[in-house]
Amino acid sequence: MTRKEKAFVRSGRVAHLATADGNGRPLNVPLCYVLDGEELYSPIDEKPKTISPLLLKRILNIRQNPHVSVVVDRYDDDWERLAYVIITGKARVLTRGKRHRRAVVLLRRKYPQYRAMAIHKRPIIHITPIHCRSWGAL
Amino acid sequence: MTRKEKAFVRSGRVAHLATADGNGRPLNVPLCYVLDGEELYSPIDEKPKTISPLLLKRILNIRQNPHVSVVVDRYDDDWERLAYVIITGKARVLTRGKRHRRAVVLLRRKYPQYRAMAIHKRPIIHITPIHCRSWGAL
Repeated sequence: MTRKEKAFVRSGRVAHLATADGNGRPLNVPLCYVLDGEELYSPIDEKPKTISPLLLKRILNIRQNPHVSVVVDRYDDDWERLAYVIITGKARVLTRGKRHRRAVVLLRRKYPQYRAMAIHKRPIIHITPIHCRSWGAL
Repeated sequence: MTRKEKAFVRSGRVAHLATADGNGRPLNVPLCYVLDGEELYSPIDEKPKTISPLLLKRILNIRQNPHVSVVVDRYDDDWERLAYVIITGKARVLTRGKRHRRAVVLLRRKYPQYRAMAIHKRPIIHITPIHCRSWGAL
């Protein structure tokens, strides 16, 4: 990622994550995330989930198939302002450990809402970018 | 799709499309789209593309693997306002014909920018939803 791409990804509030199951069927979900160097973290937070975090479809998909694609973009009806960064990479699920703790700190810094949520007790998706493509008014 | 889900999808300006290639590697792209009944259309427009439309990765993916997932969502730092509709379905590529013409009309009605673009000469992605899930303040 270039400096410009990183700054754009850092400034975003929501990203979209594409995973695919073992049969190659994709799933697209919006998510909160934080950038740490080149790595991305996204918590399985308490927002809409009614099932056990480890049974969530995106988690099952990552465990079957680690390949993912994340996009951070800006839409505006003035198309001169459009921009995106598309990342493809590999994901894994963190449930504890040093990197998990670091991700919790960074996520709570970016999103104050997480300070009142037990994201430290829940899985975090860790994405390592392999390829990055960008376009537009970053 | 319920009436509420349809209204939410109709009011969105940008969606995110997840495709996956024959090896199950996902790609996530932002796109303009229009809802027609339960069907979605998205043009291969002239925005960022420098290669032939039919060689675009998303088109190649759909031809290898028609399964897709589209999400339309609203992000707001007030998390009471979050909402999404996640569609999984099948996509195909239209290059001409009645449905292609209809999609062009609808897309130009929704996005005035397309009136000056030759989207009628370019492929359109046609997505048929199979499953739909929604959450939040639709």
